[in-house]
Amino acid sequence: METKARTADLSTVPAIGCGVERTLRVLDGKWTTLIVRELLTGPKRFGELRTALGGPSAKTITDRLRVLEHQGILTRTVHAEVPPRVVYALTDRGRSLRSVLDAMLVWGERQG
Amino acid sequence: METKARTADLSTVPAIGCGVERTLRVLDGKWTTLIVRELLTGPKRFGELRTALGGPSAKTITDRLRVLEHQGILTRTVHAEVPPRVVYALTDRGRSLRSVLDAMLVWGERQG
Repeated sequence: METKARTADLSTVPAIGCGVERTLRVLDGKWTTLIVRELLTGPKRFGELRTALGGPSAKTITDRLRVLEHQGILTRTVHAEVPPRVVYALTDRGRSLRSVLDAMLVWGERQG
Repeated sequence: METKARTADLSTVPAIGCGVERTLRVLDGKWTTLIVRELLTGPKRFGELRTALGGPSAKTITDRLRVLEHQGILTRTVHAEVPPRVVYALTDRGRSLRSVLDAMLVWGERQG
């Protein structure tokens, strides 16, 4: 994993308003985080996301996708086919979340 | 920041059941994550946590602290004083979450 320069230190910044909280405004809950994780492997159609995530309702996934699109984390592209093909893909900003998801992956894999 | 060996790759593991999801079972929501973040700077009393977190009710904080204690992320120590002093501190397992919180901090600090 690439080494990154620290721009702040946990001991000097209050919890509210710190970088951690800003990240949590984007990675807001389990399904949102798992959608980003899934799109890090490449663009996906809605049905592919739903299959990969397993648990949530279509409405839950749609809600999370809309918020992430609004936040500039992903794009939604409609291809004019019959039926229309809708593809979700991370933006550069979305892809930059890989460092966070990688840290989560490594920590989780170490748990028994 | 220390460099860590990867033990898995995002492209080969399904979203559900992967390390990311295991981490999300512990860092389950904003307040839980911010409690861990706050305790990474050292043990805290309940009132100190509440002040640092700002937003949530005492009940919300108490609920999150109990779950984190049950998961082996923190300890709750009652010092026999008048009034009793209750101190929350991360376990080794809890402190190992620093890599995840660091990645969240760095990403959040880079956002405009």
